Amino acid sequence: MMKAVRFHGQKDIRLENIEIPKCGKGQVKVKPAYVGICGTDLHEYEEGANIIPTTPHPITKEKAPLTLGHEFSGIIEEVGDDVTDVKIGQRVSVQPIIYDGTCGACRDGLINCCDNNGFIGLSGWGGGLSEHVVVPRSAIYEIPDSVSMELGALVEPLSVAWHSINISPFKKGDAVLVLGGGPIGLAVIQCLRARGAEKIIASEVSPGRREFAKRLGAHYTLDPTTDDVVARVRELCGGVGADVAFDAAGVQVGLDQALKAIRAQGTLVNIAVWNKPAQLQMNDLVFREKKYVGVTTFVQGDFRQVLDAIASGALKPGPMITGKIQMDEIVEKGFKPLVEEKDKHVKILVEVSPC
Amino acid sequence: MMKAVRFHGQKDIRLENIEIPKCGKGQVKVKPAYVGICGTDLHEYEEGANIIPTTPHPITKEKAPLTLGHEFSGIIEEVGDDVTDVKIGQRVSVQPIIYDGTCGACRDGLINCCDNNGFIGLSGWGGGLSEHVVVPRSAIYEIPDSVSMELGALVEPLSVAWHSINISPFKKGDAVLVLGGGPIGLAVIQCLRARGAEKIIASEVSPGRREFAKRLGAHYTLDPTTDDVVARVRELCGGVGADVAFDAAGVQVGLDQALKAIRAQGTLVNIAVWNKPAQLQMNDLVFREKKYVGVTTFVQGDFRQVLDAIASGALKPGPMITGKIQMDEIVEKGFKPLVEEKDKHVKILVEVSPC
Ligand SMILES: [Zn+2]
Ligand SMILES: [Zn+2]
Repeated sequence: MMKAVRFHGQKDIRLENIEIPKCGKGQVKVKPAYVGICGTDLHEYEEGANIIPTTPHPITKEKAPLTLGHEFSGIIEEVGDDVTDVKIGQRVSVQPIIYDGTCGACRDGLINCCDNNGFIGLSGWGGGLSEHVVVPRSAIYEIPDSVSMELGALVEPLSVAWHSINISPFKKGDAVLVLGGGPIGLAVIQCLRARGAEKIIASEVSPGRREFAKRLGAHYTLDPTTDDVVARVRELCGGVGADVAFDAAGVQVGLDQALKAIRAQGTLVNIAVWNKPAQLQMNDLVFREKKYVGVTTFVQGDFRQVLDAIASGALKPGPMITGKIQMDEIVEKGFKPLVEEKDKHVKILVEVSPC
Repeated sequence: MMKAVRFHGQKDIRLENIEIPKCGKGQVKVKPAYVGICGTDLHEYEEGANIIPTTPHPITKEKAPLTLGHEFSGIIEEVGDDVTDVKIGQRVSVQPIIYDGTCGACRDGLINCCDNNGFIGLSGWGGGLSEHVVVPRSAIYEIPDSVSMELGALVEPLSVAWHSINISPFKKGDAVLVLGGGPIGLAVIQCLRARGAEKIIASEVSPGRREFAKRLGAHYTLDPTTDDVVARVRELCGGVGADVAFDAAGVQVGLDQALKAIRAQGTLVNIAVWNKPAQLQMNDLVFREKKYVGVTTFVQGDFRQVLDAIASGALKPGPMITGKIQMDEIVEKGFKPLVEEKDKHVKILVEVSPC
């Protein structure tokens, strides 16, 4: 038996003893080391089940109760018979997307857009918040020696940010507006800095998060409750506006501002999850030929790019880690401070089997 | 003195005698031959002034009453002292964008996104619906010998369509959905056909316009009032959806359908003018990484590409011309049938000085 943090329902997360999963063909068994708590985990706890299936997931065939934890590093402790290219003892980050491999999106390599997609740690196949987890060979990315296991647990949120930049027309030297200084907004700032953005302007209400934005690479921070975001961004960007904007906030007023604050033919990338339709001021979109682009998670290879960027020193995401807790503290010392002291926290890691 | 059709106000368009304009430095005087009536002219007549300035336009310094006609061909009859590269007697299409040349967009070559932009035939500097018009040298494009003056008057709407395809990621062999079978939707269909679209699916309510869509190159037509557009497009496009969609209708239900009917990472291009904000179903945009792109008119060079495509026979827009009228018939035989018999009409040309 092993310990696992499992979601049973709204406000009902339990540390339980469950069966240790078996490692089959094409799979590897990983001993999770550090596991990041994500806004998604928090939302499932507070208002779920949303993403977590309550009827069998089309791919995993599993439903709640399910093990949580989709941002994690760990050590390989067993490999399937036919897995010859990874070794026991290897340090890895786990890329958690579950996909069917057969839909139109998957055939185009867009596993993140899979018609049936899910996530390890949300949709079945276990999760990082357990002493052992079995994942497909294709889900693991080796962590370079120079990168700590703690940073290995940040690869998932950093890959969301990295991927959003890959999808955008961003190029080195660009001026960029980032809306929202939560974990994903900060990850975008950090990745933009690593990739040579000349001006990174962060718009965020919370003073504490604006401080994090600066520490992680923003050149300028704005408070949308007191600053005229559109005017300030234009002014900071040679009078014409930002080349690209990333919306990691997902609020209507921010969208309206960002659409105006980008230059003609500029691109606004939405990474935020909206729980209602967004309104688009069409004249801003049409008469300046702007683009509004949706992005979601990451595809194969994004984890590699992020791990390489950390190893090279281009990405320095250490300041994102604001706490380390134990498995039995996830609600009290994890979810609670992420809600009540969100000014002070970016990423809290659960130490499952620290190393 | 010369005759000119001038907009005075809502439902007040007059055929008047006005001064013949003088041809100055950097300018050419054109004798308009054929002039297309545009939806914009109609809207100005019915509900204007909208685009037509009632206070001095920032560039032309003119205001209503103003001469109409921004889609036209003509013959050069005079050139400014310093204009040495065009000759009297040349057959030309006039590219009507008025731009300041100094704003951020203009400095990037995006004259269509100019902060102060306007149009010959709407914002001053005269218009095609007059016996003479003086325009900047940069506004004229020579019509190849093999192209008729009638087709020369279609270059403007065709350039709107051609440009929207240039802005989109469309490539030869793509499957494309076009919403709306009005003049611009039909021009898009015609241009897509010329550029090698493998499947062109047109969605249009009017049976007459669906017929035009077929004649101008659509492979399939759908009636959104009876067909399940999303299901049909997916089915016609290998189960995954269209690569690109063009919205030349600008209605909410069409936008919702088109966003669902394109494939993962597909692009929806908006050419339509909206008079209210559009609602975007963000889950469709985000979880399939789709793009929503605004386009407006054209930039320098688009007229050349269209004229070359007509000359080569790739574009065959002849069937778009559904009527020819005289200057004094613009309301009765122009605007009226375009509203009352819109099933039967695409483009009505005014013969100013036919040749
Ligand atoms: Zn799939
Ligand atoms: Zn300009």
